[in-house]
Order: sequence, then C-alpha cells, then structure tokens
Amino acid sequence: MRILRSVVEMQREAERLRLAGRTIGFVPTMGYLHAGHMSLVEHAKSATDVVILSIFVNPTQFGPSEDFAKYPRDFDKDRALAERAGVEILFHPANDEMYGNGFGTYVEEQASSRILEGMIRPGHFRGVTTVVAKLFNICKPHVAVFGQKDVQQAFIVKKMVRDLNLDVSVLVAPIARETDGLAMSSRNVYLTKQERSEAIALFQSLTMAQEKIKMGEQNAVRLRQEMESLIRSKGSPTIDYIAFVDPESFQEIDTVTGSTVLVAVAARYGTTRLIDNVLVEVR
Amino acid sequence: MRILRSVVEMQREAERLRLAGRTIGFVPTMGYLHAGHMSLVEHAKSATDVVILSIFVNPTQFGPSEDFAKYPRDFDKDRALAERAGVEILFHPANDEMYGNGFGTYVEEQASSRILEGMIRPGHFRGVTTVVAKLFNICKPHVAVFGQKDVQQAFIVKKMVRDLNLDVSVLVAPIARETDGLAMSSRNVYLTKQERSEAIALFQSLTMAQEKIKMGEQNAVRLRQEMESLIRSKGSPTIDYIAFVDPESFQEIDTVTGSTVLVAVAARYGTTRLIDNVLVEVR
Repeated sequence: MRILRSVVEMQREAERLRLAGRTIGFVPTMGYLHAGHMSLVEHAKSATDVVILSIFVNPTQFGPSEDFAKYPRDFDKDRALAERAGVEILFHPANDEMYGNGFGTYVEEQASSRILEGMIRPGHFRGVTTVVAKLFNICKPHVAVFGQKDVQQAFIVKKMVRDLNLDVSVLVAPIARETDGLAMSSRNVYLTKQERSEAIALFQSLTMAQEKIKMGEQNAVRLRQEMESLIRSKGSPTIDYIAFVDPESFQEIDTVTGSTVLVAVAARYGTTRLIDNVLVEVR
Repeated sequence: MRILRSVVEMQREAERLRLAGRTIGFVPTMGYLHAGHMSLVEHAKSATDVVILSIFVNPTQFGPSEDFAKYPRDFDKDRALAERAGVEILFHPANDEMYGNGFGTYVEEQASSRILEGMIRPGHFRGVTTVVAKLFNICKPHVAVFGQKDVQQAFIVKKMVRDLNLDVSVLVAPIARETDGLAMSSRNVYLTKQERSEAIALFQSLTMAQEKIKMGEQNAVRLRQEMESLIRSKGSPTIDYIAFVDPESFQEIDTVTGSTVLVAVAARYGTTRLIDNVLVEVR
C-alpha cells in the first residue's frame, strides 16, 4: 500500500491508473477506521480494480463549537487496517495541502442541506460537498462508496454528483452495527460505559418503528412519540430529531404513504452526538 | 466537426479521447461567435490535440433584469465559424440538459466574486463558476481557454480551479479588438451607430490611463476622474465602475505601487453593457 500526501502526486497517480485502463474505487473517510469503513472498502473492491482510501479530518464540515480538534485520530492503526483490507493507495493530506492560503470556493447543495443534520449543524453539508468535490477531483474515482449511516450526506453527495455532472458512480453501503445493534461510528469511543449501554435504545427505537410501519402504522407523529418514549426509558440524551423522510425527495413527511420511508434519529449522550437510521420497505 | 447535445455522450467522448492519449482543449462560450472567440480556439489548438467548443447561454449567470432572453443567438453561423476554426467537437446542450429538475448545487467563490462585476451583477459569478465546473466535468479538458476581456471571470475561474483541485490548466488569451480599439463582444451588435462610435472612448480612456501610469502617475482617484472625463466627452453612458486592481489579489487599489496594475471599466450605452480592461506593466 502506498501512502500519498500531496494533491499533485495523488492526481498524477490517479491519472496514470486511468490511462492504464484500471478502474478506481474511492472511500473517503475521516480516519479512526472501524468495521464500517472496512465494509465500504469491500464494496469498492468488488466494483473496481484499485481502491484509494482517504483519511482527512475535514475542518470545513465542523462547526465552531464542534469536535474537530478532539475528533479521534490514530494514523498507525488506520494504516494497518487499510493495508489489511486491501487498500492500494492511502491518501492522507495535511490541512494546508487541502485548504491553502486564501481558500474561498465552496460547493453548496441548497435544498436538502438545510434540514435535519443541516439544521442542527449549519454549514456542515457545505463543508462535506466542498471536500468531497475536491477529493473526487484529486482521486479521480470511477466509483465512490459512502455509508448509509450518514444517509443525508449520501443523498446530498449523490445530488451534487448529478447537479455538477461529476462522472462518478456513488454506491451506498449498509450500516455496520455492533452485535447489540449500535451503529458503528468513530465517535462511539467518546461514550462512557453508561452512555454506551443507553445508546442501544436508538437502534431499538428504529427497529420498533420499522415493525409498526410494516404492521400498518402511518402516523409519524405517534411513531415519533413512541420512539422518544423508548429512548428516554433507557437514558436521558438530548434528542436532536426523530424524522420520517421520503427517501426519494429527502423531505420530511407526517404520514407514511409511499412504498419506502426513511426513519432517522440523532441524539446526544453527554457530549457525544450519535446518528442512526433505517430504511423501511412499507410493502 | 461533431455536434453533441447530450451530457452523457459528451462525457463518454471526452473519456474516450483521454484514454486514447489525446489532450483536450476547451473553449466555453455563449455563442454568437466573433474573432475574439476564434482567437481562444487558436490558443486551445496550439496547446492541445483536440478542441471542444461549447455554446450554452447559461441562465444562472444572468440576473432577473438582464438580457438572458434577448442574448444574441445564431447557431448556424456559429457552427460554420467553429468548423472553419478547426473545432473538433461542438457541445451544444439544451437548458434542460444542463439544469434538470430539482437542480440545486452551486459552486461559489466567496471573495473576488463580490466586487466590481459581482457587485453590479449579484449572483453572476456563482452562475459562472457553477456552469464552468459543470462543463469541466462534462468535457474533461486538459486545458481551458478564457478571454482577458472577462478578466474578473478569468481570475475567479483560476481561483476555483485551485481551490477545488480541478485538474485543468487555465489559459487566458488577450482581448481581440476592432480596428478602432473597441473590445470585441457578442453584445456589440446591440449598439446603435451613435453608441458604437461613442463606445470607442472606453478603450481610449484605458490607453490614456496606461500612458499616464507608465509616465509615473500613481493616483488612482485622479486617473479615474480623467478617464471619466474622456468617456463623457464622447458620449453619455452610465459608468458602472472604473477600477484599479492588483492583478495578483484582485483587490482594488487607490495608489499604483506594484509592478502591474489592471485598469477595468464597465459602462452602459443605452441598454448595452460593455466591459473592457488593460493590464499595465508599470516598470
């Protein structure tokens, strides 16, 4: 596995691979890799010839009061995991390499970026779309793989790809979970033992909502109340949202009428913010 | 010369050219081609193997009260001129092909886009950077050629390319002028005979400023007054700005101190808005 830290070198290498007729799969990450990331690499490997994985904790997608500085980092461990997973090139640029002097051009999706995560974290998706556009221009992938856990991010990236005619196929891989159902996340390491056990309620509430929807419940207001009760019966997080979303338009709905509905939850246990979701096939 | 109207076909063709090892030169235009555009094609030809020219009157760079609907169009003449100039592929998409249903992702440079043209035409440069990013993703050029007449546009496009790591070299070609000095522009056809003769004063005022700067004048306020007097002595346009700009930072200056200064003017003769500029080597 090669490690590249320079934008120009990475572009040159990506161009060389393309000219040699090899297809590039790309997995953008912020590092602190876990089994969820590894499953993204597996998806990329099965779709392309060469996998590039990037590790870059992107400052522009963190708000001023968020956890950019303390976001967990462990490059040596990440390098070992990436190598073992079959990553061919690890792209690991410094902040200055990505955001040089006078940086000032942003990519912004202006509809779906404003609700849910975008409402709670103003500017977050502008940072995401900007860095993903940059990484696509640097790594030149044929296929890029994102995780379903960040479902709004995946939707917005796909929208950006369509709107800006980026010639990249975006794959979305299922959520990897711990054995008790908690969605894997680099941020899980922040949780105290107590919070860790309380947080299982997020997935449990999603599973409950899924069962009720499949049994015919259409009232999102009632479902939300039941999910909230379940979550609060196990702990006392700050719930940022419990949302029912049309996965085609990414608009919130009050009544489940379509053939699929996305149920998404975001909650803070202490200072740790967790998100999770489930895509329900209604019929 | 082939004419392509589909984004996917254009992308496929560009990819095929790249894989065949041919370098692509790209000249984005809004059509109604004149000798200025032809000189951009010449620059592209001398730098690359294949020239793609796009004709697309981009709605997102026009303000609501601007001339999008009446912008001059003559596709048959453009096609003949492009073919004669040695363009290999003419990309001519419909509006719907470029801005499909639910379009909503923009590329925005947030510093230089706000002064001069950006101040007079809010949103203009957001439309320019968005469509140029799209066209780059569609036509996949190695080299793209822009005109010095739209000097602020060229600066902002180069900044976008740098900020978003677009792997494209941007060339800027000199202003093509009529024999009396008027900068060539598709909008010149709007001018009445009277306005056409008055408008020569724009270039004359730039030439005067250039001579005075070379002779040691450093006071931009005085230079601006003298330029305005000259322009008003020949006609009565609305002058949007007369600006002295550091070409490195694209910031306005009051005193000419650097080794080069850009002098730029924008004025409206009747309903026709003209821009022109000259880059002065001070010493």
